[in-house]
Amino acid sequence: MNVKMIRYLLGIILLIEAGLLLFPLLVALLYGESIRPFLITIGILILISVPFIILKPQNTQIYTKEGFICVAGAWLLMSVFGAIPFVASGTIPNFISAFFETASGFTTTGASILTEIESLPKSILFWRSFTHWIGGMGVLVFMLAILPLAGGQTMYLMRAEVPGPTKGKLVPKMQNSALILYGIYVVMTVLLFFILLLCGMDAYHASVNAFATAGTGGFSVLNNSIAGYNNPAVEWVIAIFMLLFGINFNLYYFMIIKRWSEIRKNEELYTFLAICLISTVAIAANTWKLFENAGDCIRTAFFQVTTIISTCGFATADFNLWPALSQSILILLMLMGSCAGSTAGGLKISRVILICKGTLREIRHVLRPKSVNVVRLDGEPVEEDVVRSAIGYLALYLLLLVFTTFIISIDGYSLETNLTATIACLNNIGPGLKEVGPTGNFSGYSLFSQFLLALNMLFGRLEIMPMMILFSPFTWKKIREQKKLARKRKLNQLKKQDLKSDETIPKKYW
Amino acid sequence: MNVKMIRYLLGIILLIEAGLLLFPLLVALLYGESIRPFLITIGILILISVPFIILKPQNTQIYTKEGFICVAGAWLLMSVFGAIPFVASGTIPNFISAFFETASGFTTTGASILTEIESLPKSILFWRSFTHWIGGMGVLVFMLAILPLAGGQTMYLMRAEVPGPTKGKLVPKMQNSALILYGIYVVMTVLLFFILLLCGMDAYHASVNAFATAGTGGFSVLNNSIAGYNNPAVEWVIAIFMLLFGINFNLYYFMIIKRWSEIRKNEELYTFLAICLISTVAIAANTWKLFENAGDCIRTAFFQVTTIISTCGFATADFNLWPALSQSILILLMLMGSCAGSTAGGLKISRVILICKGTLREIRHVLRPKSVNVVRLDGEPVEEDVVRSAIGYLALYLLLLVFTTFIISIDGYSLETNLTATIACLNNIGPGLKEVGPTGNFSGYSLFSQFLLALNMLFGRLEIMPMMILFSPFTWKKIREQKKLARKRKLNQLKKQDLKSDETIPKKYW
Repeated sequence: MNVKMIRYLLGIILLIEAGLLLFPLLVALLYGESIRPFLITIGILILISVPFIILKPQNTQIYTKEGFICVAGAWLLMSVFGAIPFVASGTIPNFISAFFETASGFTTTGASILTEIESLPKSILFWRSFTHWIGGMGVLVFMLAILPLAGGQTMYLMRAEVPGPTKGKLVPKMQNSALILYGIYVVMTVLLFFILLLCGMDAYHASVNAFATAGTGGFSVLNNSIAGYNNPAVEWVIAIFMLLFGINFNLYYFMIIKRWSEIRKNEELYTFLAICLISTVAIAANTWKLFENAGDCIRTAFFQVTTIISTCGFATADFNLWPALSQSILILLMLMGSCAGSTAGGLKISRVILICKGTLREIRHVLRPKSVNVVRLDGEPVEEDVVRSAIGYLALYLLLLVFTTFIISIDGYSLETNLTATIACLNNIGPGLKEVGPTGNFSGYSLFSQFLLALNMLFGRLEIMPMMILFSPFTWKKIREQKKLARKRKLNQLKKQDLKSDETIPKKYW
Repeated sequence: MNVKMIRYLLGIILLIEAGLLLFPLLVALLYGESIRPFLITIGILILISVPFIILKPQNTQIYTKEGFICVAGAWLLMSVFGAIPFVASGTIPNFISAFFETASGFTTTGASILTEIESLPKSILFWRSFTHWIGGMGVLVFMLAILPLAGGQTMYLMRAEVPGPTKGKLVPKMQNSALILYGIYVVMTVLLFFILLLCGMDAYHASVNAFATAGTGGFSVLNNSIAGYNNPAVEWVIAIFMLLFGINFNLYYFMIIKRWSEIRKNEELYTFLAICLISTVAIAANTWKLFENAGDCIRTAFFQVTTIISTCGFATADFNLWPALSQSILILLMLMGSCAGSTAGGLKISRVILICKGTLREIRHVLRPKSVNVVRLDGEPVEEDVVRSAIGYLALYLLLLVFTTFIISIDGYSLETNLTATIACLNNIGPGLKEVGPTGNFSGYSLFSQFLLALNMLFGRLEIMPMMILFSPFTWKKIREQKKLARKRKLNQLKKQDLKSDETIPKKYW
């Protein structure tokens, strides 16, 4: 394992984080707020990252495992250091809670432990929303877009960070792929920013909401979330953009280069749009009586569907009060999530399709044991390994879900709260039901539960495997063994040198 | 497909059901109750089954698919006809509700739509509890034990009915395996019956409770279930026997023939017992404050753990009122179930072990792609197909769980009620939480939901696949095609005969 390269890449990531902290610092200067929290964090980040970067390793080759460890490590460290401004500013005095909030930001979860938001410093809230935007497309993809790393190794980094079972790179050169993705991301965010300005928001609100929508995060700067703006136009705009950010970004690229055939045969897109449409109609019909007019009803239903399926988690209504059918639909959408290669979380529609097709195949296999059954997606056969890993992912996902729900139930909340809290964190959604519903928050959970839920967010954002490997004792055993081996080799070399030098030393000195 | 053989076997099953109905008829005679409901049902069963049996097919060979269809058909038909006594006696006037109750009986679920039990005729309650005992070991296993069918085909029947990923037959001859299993089952039930007599129950109560415990069903003849006896000795005895009936019956056989090594290396048994022990301790510690003395606390915790993990579903406490941690433990136990090859439901411990090991294997696979990772159970390597089908089963199970929870939420109950109601039916447990908790029942659900939940019980008892294949349009298309082909062949034969006879007919008649 190339530990030196991992250390080097992590150093770069931390330096990038220091650079990104200049934005909230700028906001603090603009609004005359304290810049101390950001200066402290930037100082710490530079102090730690520089020694890592100076020693650029000679061997830059990394593989899958290094890619996973690097991505998991980067997200963990970013969340830890990103929490410092919250603690330093006194907004969230406890470090674990601040870690929860930052992890919730970077992973675009949007679950909060803050109860009163509007009175907080604008710069801190800006940083909080900005983490959504950074986490949305991924900070390693950003690094790949700006850093000229040698070709081979970057694939493993990107594969580990971009969610869902995707087909890989857009264009032969990985750096260009990363640039294209970030380009689309920036353009769409800017577009949303201007449309929100047109809807009557000021620049500050338009930017933080654009960040939270683009990253499908869901942090809001109002206590009542989007409902607080009391503006139907804003709700429609954000709902439509949440839908757009839930679509695989590759498709936008195909649209730009006019490869319509790729879009036309994309099963995931159709399924995603169909699910959104059907769910909106079903929820609107089910909650008809709760609203005064049809416009409100349809808008609210559409907003809730897009905010949940895109795992954004903005709130315009308290669905705790809705009928059980609507709640069940929303929980189903929570589990599914949006398209692979989007900024959204969840299991991903394409994985759900693969799991369903793989399961149907098993039934067919029992019916006709001798026939060869190939699972197809977008009309093309899917490799056996991909189907297997989709179903394996589901199993892993469930084990984690059951385990976390179980552990946090020590805090004494109801099963519904614990289960939906875990789903909301693991799928990077934000709100759950009951105590952690759209009007509630996670501050009631103990610090231990908060820490566990924050880890779940990271597990969910990185699709489990990278975190699993980072925490695997096996990985660390290997690193220790490697170090031991290196030390032994060095010792042997020293001994050899000793032997050599021995020759020059007269025998009598022995 | 050998449709004739399926029809023949189903005929036998119905005749067996008619025979089994003689027992409640006897009880009705003993207690001077009306025997009309049973006579009517027996009459109908004989009328329908006799024509099926008379035409014994020449080709008795059947394979996996026929085995599945036969088993699914048998259980469905038995539940339909077994519901007649409830309707005919006026106990449950609606046929769908009666079907729910009977399916709940045969599948050893124990979920009830009855609100007032104690005032019902003793013979009807006897039949209700007796269905548990019949369903516990399986009616096809019973048929195999008493019928001298040719060797080859019986394996497919037994494999479809005995739950869990088991290694197959105990002894070379399948009929002997079935006899051994039923023998152990009968002996253990009789033993329990006598112990219950010693605890002070009368013969009637001892027998119905022995049936419900042996089948791990959970129907009670008291409104307050086992709590109604107010007898700690009874609770201990039943709790221990629920545990014993949750163990793979093959192990008892190995015990009889003194093959201790088989028991010693049985991972499932150890895991099962460890789970029971840990859960009991955890729940006792968690509910300590709710009880006046330690004895009550430990006994109740042990009883709830065994009643839930064995999917029996007797009640001695209302765990709706327990802390969230205890509830979470119970829900985990609900999902797991007991050992394969026992009378209990759920996913089965061995399958859970396989799923966990298979998932861990996937992680190892990512870490070391080139190494060969074999999943081992009881120290022996498990075939890839078995691991794959265990994980596939989980996916199928979840799809069914999500689908049913979703559909029954139309009735307007809370998510917690709907989810645990579905888990309780699919895993053949009985009570869930909230409205369907230990003190509630399923009568509040609409007839449509009751029907769907009853189907879920059958899906769960037969481990999904047989029912899936029975309801698959593909199966029926094939049967139709086969019939068409047979008709064509017959027509061709007739034509040939016509042609032959033509030869004797003078040409001028044309």
